[in-house]
Amino acid sequence: MSAYDDLMARERETQALAQVAGRLGWDQETMMPRGAADQRAEESGAMQAVLHARRVDRARGDVLAEAEGQATEPVARAQLRHIRRDYERAVKVPGDLAVALARLTSRAQGQWAEARAADDYAAFAPVLAEVVRLKREEAAALSAGGTLYDALLEDYEPGMSAAKLDAMFAEMRPRLVALRGAALAVEWPRLEGRFDRDGQLALSQDLAQVFGYDLSRGRLDLAVHPFSSGSGDDVRITTRVSEADPFNCFYSTIHEVGHACYEQGIDPAYRLTPLGQGVSMGVHESQSRIYENQLGRSRAFCGWLYGRMRDGFGDFGIADEETFYRAVNRVHRGYIRTEADEVQYNLHVMLRYDLERALIAGDLSVADLEAAWNDRFAADFGYAVDRASNGVLQDVHWSVGLFGYFPTYSLGNLYAGCLFEALQAAVPGLDAQLARGELAEATVWLRGAVQRHGGLFEPTEVIARACGAAPTAGPLLDYLDRKFGDLAG
Amino acid sequence: MSAYDDLMARERETQALAQVAGRLGWDQETMMPRGAADQRAEESGAMQAVLHARRVDRARGDVLAEAEGQATEPVARAQLRHIRRDYERAVKVPGDLAVALARLTSRAQGQWAEARAADDYAAFAPVLAEVVRLKREEAAALSAGGTLYDALLEDYEPGMSAAKLDAMFAEMRPRLVALRGAALAVEWPRLEGRFDRDGQLALSQDLAQVFGYDLSRGRLDLAVHPFSSGSGDDVRITTRVSEADPFNCFYSTIHEVGHACYEQGIDPAYRLTPLGQGVSMGVHESQSRIYENQLGRSRAFCGWLYGRMRDGFGDFGIADEETFYRAVNRVHRGYIRTEADEVQYNLHVMLRYDLERALIAGDLSVADLEAAWNDRFAADFGYAVDRASNGVLQDVHWSVGLFGYFPTYSLGNLYAGCLFEALQAAVPGLDAQLARGELAEATVWLRGAVQRHGGLFEPTEVIARACGAAPTAGPLLDYLDRKFGDLAG
Repeated sequence: MSAYDDLMARERETQALAQVAGRLGWDQETMMPRGAADQRAEESGAMQAVLHARRVDRARGDVLAEAEGQATEPVARAQLRHIRRDYERAVKVPGDLAVALARLTSRAQGQWAEARAADDYAAFAPVLAEVVRLKREEAAALSAGGTLYDALLEDYEPGMSAAKLDAMFAEMRPRLVALRGAALAVEWPRLEGRFDRDGQLALSQDLAQVFGYDLSRGRLDLAVHPFSSGSGDDVRITTRVSEADPFNCFYSTIHEVGHACYEQGIDPAYRLTPLGQGVSMGVHESQSRIYENQLGRSRAFCGWLYGRMRDGFGDFGIADEETFYRAVNRVHRGYIRTEADEVQYNLHVMLRYDLERALIAGDLSVADLEAAWNDRFAADFGYAVDRASNGVLQDVHWSVGLFGYFPTYSLGNLYAGCLFEALQAAVPGLDAQLARGELAEATVWLRGAVQRHGGLFEPTEVIARACGAAPTAGPLLDYLDRKFGDLAG
Repeated sequence: MSAYDDLMARERETQALAQVAGRLGWDQETMMPRGAADQRAEESGAMQAVLHARRVDRARGDVLAEAEGQATEPVARAQLRHIRRDYERAVKVPGDLAVALARLTSRAQGQWAEARAADDYAAFAPVLAEVVRLKREEAAALSAGGTLYDALLEDYEPGMSAAKLDAMFAEMRPRLVALRGAALAVEWPRLEGRFDRDGQLALSQDLAQVFGYDLSRGRLDLAVHPFSSGSGDDVRITTRVSEADPFNCFYSTIHEVGHACYEQGIDPAYRLTPLGQGVSMGVHESQSRIYENQLGRSRAFCGWLYGRMRDGFGDFGIADEETFYRAVNRVHRGYIRTEADEVQYNLHVMLRYDLERALIAGDLSVADLEAAWNDRFAADFGYAVDRASNGVLQDVHWSVGLFGYFPTYSLGNLYAGCLFEALQAAVPGLDAQLARGELAEATVWLRGAVQRHGGLFEPTEVIARACGAAPTAGPLLDYLDRKFGDLAG
């Protein structure tokens, strides 16, 4: 057996184990009895220990080096690039630190949930300070002389840097702020009434299939926070139901279907290999966002959805398609990122990006974080945060050590803007199809242009190949200006 | 850290991984998308490879030997006894043989299912011959000069031997045959009509709780073949629903609840240790059987269940409690072990026991197995097998390499007979409680007498301690004579 074949056999087994660990996470959020939490922590810990030992195994490094000296074919080179990156990352972080971080963030997540429920940032600050301290240590181990924050970014978006993000946000901010001003100046209709749970779930199931989710290789369940989980032939999604807010259910479903279709759309030849997953968080989010927003919240698709909701729920007080389209895209004041409209969403991300960079750089202390958040929010949004759960405690990310993750949401939006421009050029009849609830041509194009490649190309390269040009913020901002300029009259 | 503590830390992690592998099996039967089967085979294979490597790890053997020289306390000695048995078993079987058996039985199970659907034993015989060949090799590696079949028995019922089973079955057979003759001579009422699925599931959920299953540490789902899975704080069960046969659903549930309560009832101090699981298949089956039969099919409990079924399904054509009791315990002709009544069940087991012993001893060839089955069935039951799916192809066990497993079903019945005698002595008001649907005192007694010990005592020892005497077939046969003698007038 060649060194490359030997290496890939090991990696394949590791990928299979990683899928098992991921399914354990799915189970925990959907099926696990509540009394099993402590035992589950041990089970998950044991799986992570097995995976970590395989990642840092010196024999892996040796056979990797040997394979790198032999393989020349592009797919093999791409596999080796991913394995090299993963191996270097794993061996650079001292084992003690990795264990300490895993334990700490598990505890910190629980403390965050309690603090959020009590609106008590002070109760969370000590453990968060410890998380920041260890993440800075980890970043120092990884950075090799570069900046700490860039080293963390690399985990979620290989090739990205704070300098590039600064430029991106600098271009976005003024146009989004202007657009928000215009949008908040007009009235938006909103959905009212109760929408029964079974009806929402039935329509969710239909939406998943309309958007191309293969339910023979996946399933749709309920969870407190919607997510997508798994790769290859077992990619599961969740949604949630609020009787007062069916849009939450439907657009959570479509969003997660975007993530799931990316995983399901990857070339089957890459299954259970390093190339067999979405290449970065940003590209992943580009798929969920284009499904959810550019397609799912388009005027044409809203027309179709309006009909389906009338079929399912009768007259629900929205008089016509245009009013329904405005209700779906309603721009509104609010504190919560995950409830933000397309115009304001990236402003929420920018706030987090600047604060987390300052934390990691050591320019902002955890003790001062709540005040910094509230000041920044008032400056950016024009009204004061009313309580910590609507402010600094709203997101789980920092408690579990996800620093450098937030900007990938905006990158996803940016990539989605580029892809939508290319998609419209490639599918001239798109609007007419969307108006009939037909997503097949759009989703097949996305599969061919983006999804099937998995990890074959670097993040910006896969977008550039799909669009014929390197990704920039222009297409997203133009799209938002057109859509919301129109909606705001 | 002492060698014992070091060893137990490793074992604990292995146990946690084994729980994960078990949960993967649960998922496969309940939740997995059908298109995920191939990928799942790789995932399960990777988990089994990890577990096997840990079991045969020489470092494990070294620290085990060191711990054996130090530990004196009874619980520690019991832990070491289990680890020693597991280690010896693992290292005795050559790695190549273990891998070949895992691959072969995975394939054989599929071929068995196809052959059963086609009623075509000849299509299954070649792969079964291969399974028998490898199981004989495995038994030879394990037997250390003893008989092959005894070596296989040891996997499911430590301390058991074919000689002991021969004596047990020799005592059982004449009394069961006589009882069957009497029972088949009278008329038995049977349930007719349709019983809606939701009503069956709701009552199943109630029955699970009535019998003491802790749903905060478990869950009840549907599966093609009912099973119980997991240990400690995450023990899940499944049942099935046939609209024509609600007894199948209810008694499958109660049976699996018996298994699950055993696992849930083990001393929490043993969680994720070798003592933290039911000690043998026979003792496990004693719990499922006493819940299902001695308790669940008693006249007193049937009276309560009759009322609950009338509440849930209205008048279903059974006029009174006594007729209902007779319908639940109906003795009838049939081919299928899993559908057999209490009188005939063990006769089905004896047939399999004798045939599989002959296969493993080399006295019966796989090519002759179907004819041998059919001859034996006609001799034992007095009528001819009409097709292979009602005969030699009805059970999955042999296809997956379970030789030596069948007799543990009868051992379970025998143990249940002993335990029921002791339980009646310990709980004088038992019948009055059962008539009110109150199982608490009975199940608490079983927990204290049997379940809490987990693997602390050897199988026959745990029964002897609970009953004050070594287990024999007498109590079961007396119980069956009384119950069915009465029913048959």
